[in-house]
Amino acid sequence: MSTFSPTPSRRSAIEPFIVMDVMRAAADREQAGHRVIHMEVGQPGEAAPPVVLDAARTALADGAIGYTEALGLRSLRARIQDHYRRAYGVDVAYERIAVTTGSSGGFNLAFLAAFDPGARIALTAPGYPAYRNLLHTLGLEAIEIPLGGSAGPILTPELLAAAHAEAPLDGVLVASPANPTGTLMSPDALRDLVAAAEDLGLQFISDEIYHRLVYEGEAATACAFSDNAIIVNSFSKYYCMTGWRVGWMILPEALVRAVERIGQNLYISPPAISQRAAVAAFDVSADLDRIKDVYAANRRLLLEKLPALGFEDFAPCDGAFYAYASIRRLANDSVAFSRRMLEEAGVAITPGLDFDRERGAHTVRFSFAGTHADMTEAMDRIAAWLG
Amino acid sequence: MSTFSPTPSRRSAIEPFIVMDVMRAAADREQAGHRVIHMEVGQPGEAAPPVVLDAARTALADGAIGYTEALGLRSLRARIQDHYRRAYGVDVAYERIAVTTGSSGGFNLAFLAAFDPGARIALTAPGYPAYRNLLHTLGLEAIEIPLGGSAGPILTPELLAAAHAEAPLDGVLVASPANPTGTLMSPDALRDLVAAAEDLGLQFISDEIYHRLVYEGEAATACAFSDNAIIVNSFSKYYCMTGWRVGWMILPEALVRAVERIGQNLYISPPAISQRAAVAAFDVSADLDRIKDVYAANRRLLLEKLPALGFEDFAPCDGAFYAYASIRRLANDSVAFSRRMLEEAGVAITPGLDFDRERGAHTVRFSFAGTHADMTEAMDRIAAWLG
Repeated sequence: MSTFSPTPSRRSAIEPFIVMDVMRAAADREQAGHRVIHMEVGQPGEAAPPVVLDAARTALADGAIGYTEALGLRSLRARIQDHYRRAYGVDVAYERIAVTTGSSGGFNLAFLAAFDPGARIALTAPGYPAYRNLLHTLGLEAIEIPLGGSAGPILTPELLAAAHAEAPLDGVLVASPANPTGTLMSPDALRDLVAAAEDLGLQFISDEIYHRLVYEGEAATACAFSDNAIIVNSFSKYYCMTGWRVGWMILPEALVRAVERIGQNLYISPPAISQRAAVAAFDVSADLDRIKDVYAANRRLLLEKLPALGFEDFAPCDGAFYAYASIRRLANDSVAFSRRMLEEAGVAITPGLDFDRERGAHTVRFSFAGTHADMTEAMDRIAAWLG
Repeated sequence: MSTFSPTPSRRSAIEPFIVMDVMRAAADREQAGHRVIHMEVGQPGEAAPPVVLDAARTALADGAIGYTEALGLRSLRARIQDHYRRAYGVDVAYERIAVTTGSSGGFNLAFLAAFDPGARIALTAPGYPAYRNLLHTLGLEAIEIPLGGSAGPILTPELLAAAHAEAPLDGVLVASPANPTGTLMSPDALRDLVAAAEDLGLQFISDEIYHRLVYEGEAATACAFSDNAIIVNSFSKYYCMTGWRVGWMILPEALVRAVERIGQNLYISPPAISQRAAVAAFDVSADLDRIKDVYAANRRLLLEKLPALGFEDFAPCDGAFYAYASIRRLANDSVAFSRRMLEEAGVAITPGLDFDRERGAHTVRFSFAGTHADMTEAMDRIAAWLG
């Protein structure tokens, strides 16, 4: 006689990631005894460096692992501040640094602290799909600005101004290096875009999670150009700490208390062991750069082999660990193409529709965060399959 | 010439926890060389049991710590399923179990998956302040139903129906044992309330984070009474894993996919080391029950000493590790009273205003999760101070 049946909210109606189906199919194939080379996942295959693991072990030995302050361990915030001084020559006030539960936690806090429902935030297409989904769930509107082709590979002040003229924006989010393309904005291009955004009255959010994974050019941080930008970063990619769920933000002073309050209520604090371990992560650039050297070799391999196999229109692949290309000469349905590549060649990749709902039927993303041997074998398998 | 200055969103305008000021003042006193006994924080002083720490060490030794599935490690979900069978005699479908980033992550996912902006959710007052704040930030309305006095110590079908009659509700959230009171609902009372809520068409959410910390009576789980209730639980309290940030939910089947989708985008996954460690947590009831025995002794001590010192109108303190009482005979401002107790007696407690904005000026919460020696000393200090 209960009149109640649970119903999902409208705001939970976000598209699932297609890559999840790829991953499930890959796991099924592996369970059935087949070998699969993973080029679909955006995470390093390497473990965090030994000193990071040692710091975690010390935390485990030190007694109760309690909540930290909502903005994170002071020792970690101080190391992050120091990192900005050394890596970028930028002085960031300690108070503006917030440790977060991965960059995911950072985006969630940034969107909630800076925007009220109905606000319109510009993103680029292709782009990381969680931005769009998260904005939807939080009652915000994602305005996608298509890049590539005649628009060029990066978001320019002109493209941003045109979108704002069409219907006023409240913010803009840019990643450099970007996912899924790996495309980098030059320091000048980033500075100009930050200035243009703020001239238009927009909150600038800079996703810098792929910093330190740059093969061509130089990555600037938006906080070198404005104290009003929100910077989101993480220990997941360069530092090989995905599953640890720890990242950070640099905040405009005016948003610090808002982020702290929301963080207290939404997270209490980021995971404490991960914070303790992350303090050590800035000490081990040599180890991490050796891992990056493998990505660099993988990148050279892919950029040599894939075009010869018929993949084309590569987005500039300056950083991160992704190659994003058109499959027009090979197929016209990236989901079916990826499924067949997995089934017939044993190589898992991500269909472009996850990143670009308009044009992604003709594109795919290769992640080259794996070992060089695996990447070499993957290129051979794809060549044999397409041949 | 920038026209932009960052402004916090309206939805970030939530009240800070007063206890944070207490904690800061306590830290300042400690830094100045004074000893402070902590009865303000809702977390165990004990470390997680050795086998849990060992499981974390094994995870560190096993190689890369990557993302898990958004709903959590299958091995952990299976252990949770097993726990419901053993502890409650309830069969829960494996698919309905979601691992979360603490119970905080569980509430966030539950609210987003089940409710759209404008929905009205009934809470009890006094109650855990993060519920109210989180609901506000997510565009939901918290409807507080006062307990205590003539209303009695627990939420009844009558009180809920009366609130719903005044203005229609969409959901109701109840904690048993509760924070800040420790008050427990009997199995019958909980079953009746779940049935009443569902008859009214409301989504029932049961916060069961203080289960297994029960000194009088028996805690039932709401999933024994309805497959449509959302259960939120955590490894933070009984299992002594606060800073690990790992908890779980039991979901109505209709909400599983919504929670999975939002979880993928908001969290990617809960922290992986913590999940690996939590798998071992169900093996160590004897260790954890010894810690609970300390709380039980602390509880007896407080319930003997505090009334004699002038604290009165104790809420039934059947579980958790809190005593919640009136200070009417001692003072009329719980914030000033708590500040003076810290400064003059070196004991930190939480003013009731964090839990009850209407009536909390006359109440305080004592957490007795510390050692028995500390609790004994705290009672002596408070007696000397008040005497």
